[in-house]
Amino acid sequence: MNYPKSFLDLVECFKRLPGIGGKSAERLAYYVLSMDKEYVQEFAHTLMNFQDNIHYCKKCGHICEGDYCEICQDETRDQSVICVVESPKDVFAMEKVREYHGLYHVLHGTISMIDGTTVDDLNISSLFERLDGVKEVILATNPTREGETTALFLAKLLAKRNIETSRIANGLPIGSNIDYADELTLLKSLEGRKKI
Amino acid sequence: MNYPKSFLDLVECFKRLPGIGGKSAERLAYYVLSMDKEYVQEFAHTLMNFQDNIHYCKKCGHICEGDYCEICQDETRDQSVICVVESPKDVFAMEKVREYHGLYHVLHGTISMIDGTTVDDLNISSLFERLDGVKEVILATNPTREGETTALFLAKLLAKRNIETSRIANGLPIGSNIDYADELTLLKSLEGRKKI
Ligand SMILES: [Zn+2]
Ligand SMILES: [Zn+2]
Repeated sequence: MNYPKSFLDLVECFKRLPGIGGKSAERLAYYVLSMDKEYVQEFAHTLMNFQDNIHYCKKCGHICEGDYCEICQDETRDQSVICVVESPKDVFAMEKVREYHGLYHVLHGTISMIDGTTVDDLNISSLFERLDGVKEVILATNPTREGETTALFLAKLLAKRNIETSRIANGLPIGSNIDYADELTLLKSLEGRKKI
Repeated sequence: MNYPKSFLDLVECFKRLPGIGGKSAERLAYYVLSMDKEYVQEFAHTLMNFQDNIHYCKKCGHICEGDYCEICQDETRDQSVICVVESPKDVFAMEKVREYHGLYHVLHGTISMIDGTTVDDLNISSLFERLDGVKEVILATNPTREGETTALFLAKLLAKRNIETSRIANGLPIGSNIDYADELTLLKSLEGRKKI
């Protein structure tokens, strides 16, 4: 006695998504069975057109619906600063702060020995093609081993081009407790201390 | 700066699924963006045809691709016993045991005051239309408050029809530890003790 093929097919589709195991995929398929038909059709159509509608900006690599993203098209933004981030998510996070008014460059990952991700797999070469008129590059990759490696790699290349390069600060998150902080964060927080 | 509309649409679709919150839905949408196009198209088509292909068996309520499920169509199975379960998942679980050779009846839920699920919302009336020639009904709803309520309700109605009715046993799961068992399970395990 096996699940009907169409059921197993949907379970397989769900299982391909990250963080969804066999049991969860089954549960989701049962749920889809109980959903209003119009919602399921909408889901299917949204998926079908998703990749056709969403593109990576030809200039910065951020996600957008046309050729270029909103930010690259906005001439009021400071064209002399580029903030380099790992993923489009980070662009949205930065924009929420409402303090940065320059441009972005989305790498779509980090250099990683473990994953075998090399420079050529990332959106890096196009960064060096858009440095005319750029005064500062802010390296805002994550404060992880891979993020640091990638930032150091880019910093070296940018130094050769005589571009001012900065790295976002590490330290204790606002609202956190010192006794809960990991040692490395605390060390970075001490090293980065400022006179008050 | 907002996410592109097509992106938000897909996030919304994922958010409608159970156990998937805003952050997970976003993560899944990013993942879909990075998937091979053929897989995404396959996912969309599978979803599109899913509800058309999967039906509830007209006799027992189990899921199947035609009008009647494999089990109801299998004349070698014991037609005199019906095992009543809450969901198709339970049929698959029972079948894995390979010890039960009768028929099933899937309620698609339980009577629940909290959810407002009444007898009329469940696949119950059709059970009483298929009792000719049936000698025993095994009530295999879950050992939860709702499952017990539903089993008791059915047991009363079946008693009027002079059908032998049984309830699956409660007790300690095999391989479990007594000191980890909850009190109710331990009590049921004591009450259900057998001479050895
Ligand atoms: Zn852009
Ligand atoms: Zn059936």
